[in-house]
Amino acid sequence: MDRIQRIAIVGGIHGNEWTGAYLVQKFAQYPDLICRSSFAALTLLGNPAALAANRRYIDKDLNRCFRLEDLQNPALTGYEEDRAREIYRILGPGGKTPVDLLIDLHSTTANMGLTLILGQDHPLMLHLAAALSARHPLVRVYRSIDSGREYDSLRSLCPLSLAIEVGPVPQGVLIAEIFQATEALIHTLLDALDHYNQGHWPPGDRLLTCYQYLGAIDYPRNSQGAIQAMIHPQLQSRDYQPLHPGSPLFLTFEGEAILYQGEATVYPIFINEAAYYEQGVALYLTEKQTLQIPGEGNCQRSI
Amino acid sequence: MDRIQRIAIVGGIHGNEWTGAYLVQKFAQYPDLICRSSFAALTLLGNPAALAANRRYIDKDLNRCFRLEDLQNPALTGYEEDRAREIYRILGPGGKTPVDLLIDLHSTTANMGLTLILGQDHPLMLHLAAALSARHPLVRVYRSIDSGREYDSLRSLCPLSLAIEVGPVPQGVLIAEIFQATEALIHTLLDALDHYNQGHWPPGDRLLTCYQYLGAIDYPRNSQGAIQAMIHPQLQSRDYQPLHPGSPLFLTFEGEAILYQGEATVYPIFINEAAYYEQGVALYLTEKQTLQIPGEGNCQRSI
Repeated sequence: MDRIQRIAIVGGIHGNEWTGAYLVQKFAQYPDLICRSSFAALTLLGNPAALAANRRYIDKDLNRCFRLEDLQNPALTGYEEDRAREIYRILGPGGKTPVDLLIDLHSTTANMGLTLILGQDHPLMLHLAAALSARHPLVRVYRSIDSGREYDSLRSLCPLSLAIEVGPVPQGVLIAEIFQATEALIHTLLDALDHYNQGHWPPGDRLLTCYQYLGAIDYPRNSQGAIQAMIHPQLQSRDYQPLHPGSPLFLTFEGEAILYQGEATVYPIFINEAAYYEQGVALYLTEKQTLQIPGEGNCQRSI
Repeated sequence: MDRIQRIAIVGGIHGNEWTGAYLVQKFAQYPDLICRSSFAALTLLGNPAALAANRRYIDKDLNRCFRLEDLQNPALTGYEEDRAREIYRILGPGGKTPVDLLIDLHSTTANMGLTLILGQDHPLMLHLAAALSARHPLVRVYRSIDSGREYDSLRSLCPLSLAIEVGPVPQGVLIAEIFQATEALIHTLLDALDHYNQGHWPPGDRLLTCYQYLGAIDYPRNSQGAIQAMIHPQLQSRDYQPLHPGSPLFLTFEGEAILYQGEATVYPIFINEAAYYEQGVALYLTEKQTLQIPGEGNCQRSI
């Protein structure tokens, strides 16, 4: 396979998600921590102005600014639109220091544990996800394929990419336990990448449990757009747990339960993420899947 | 005693503390919920512009704008300074509908349970706090006397006042269980007030456990003001638990513990509250106290 020569670790694409922003600043201060023999690593603080303001963004969500036609559109001149172009010129294809693999660090108020978000089924990324799942009990793998996010997010810049989404952690807060768990996960990831880079592939096929995006559900709202209900207490914090037809989804302010009307059992994630209220998302629904990752022979062909 | 004739329930003084903001909007929609036979109740949404922007404040923390000389200073014309004057003209002394008792609803990212904040030792407020403590196991009483907050906060407008501070809940998020617990607490409070209003005082003295403000501790910072450490995992979420000399307080980004250097056991609160990073506060220290609340005879004299 082609060796991964340079990777990027990005944090603070959202300025109020401090876990990634502070981890990236730590790695920038101590570059030996992310150095491995077989590849170079660079760090990038995504949205410094939003971090200083302790806001998700200044003008527009930076992680929606990487669509190619937007990057090439000179009429888009908001802070994040400019910043997306800067980032593209640094680590994008044809940029100053293009990278082969990109890790984007995020945090969420939802109980997402240590979630790996994969936008493609590249065998290397699936193998990395399997290696991390085997070593960290809180790791979950969310396949965001067909969610639309694979065309406008930072990770769309690089064919080998993943986002790490950790929680629950409030915006503008550091939780040491989550900071340390995320750092440990990154070290495991870098070690695994180094290992694979040196030609060590698992001999046979492996199985990977993952959760495939199905769709989003918004809060019940009135005609003015004001929410009329909250996540039901029986659903709160139960990310990646099965939600059966007829189970409680929301609780109105008057105390009435609103039930899930779907016909199949699904697996909600990003339940009650703070930043998604304004995006009209109370939770995502996913399908639990088991993927078969090809072993050594197939991988050598497909990478 | 003098009967309490009119009370105010205020929420959303901070625009990203949704529990109180949505509860007050519910009470405004269903005024019968907070109606009792012996007193009138009004509701007030503290900072509508900040709520719409989902920020703590627009120009300045509204709950620091109620100092009398600031209210009278025409040079102060920020959004919150104007809004403080409007609120003063509604429910302050000499206002349109002055109130005898004020309840101010807040939420926090710290594990504060259902905290009652008392700024004075008025026997009626202590009795109410004791009644609520007896009925809700998560209730804690924080005496903020001498914290400085009794001169600039909304509750300084009214000699009988308390803030209710609930958590942990992220900013810009509703947690149904906390919403319902806060609403239940308010109903207990209104019922107890109605009861006392009708002359039913506890016959004898009562004891009340409370936590008296001692001081604040900031995060370790470098010369540029950047934080260098996080709340230690062994302290995180342990609000109202004893902190002994030599126990871990912070964890640096390099993984070193910083220990509590004080000489006495104290009780930290507001541990890792998101809004306090910018105020230079990692936690407050309190002393655990047992107060004796005077019974019927003394109360009748002192109210």
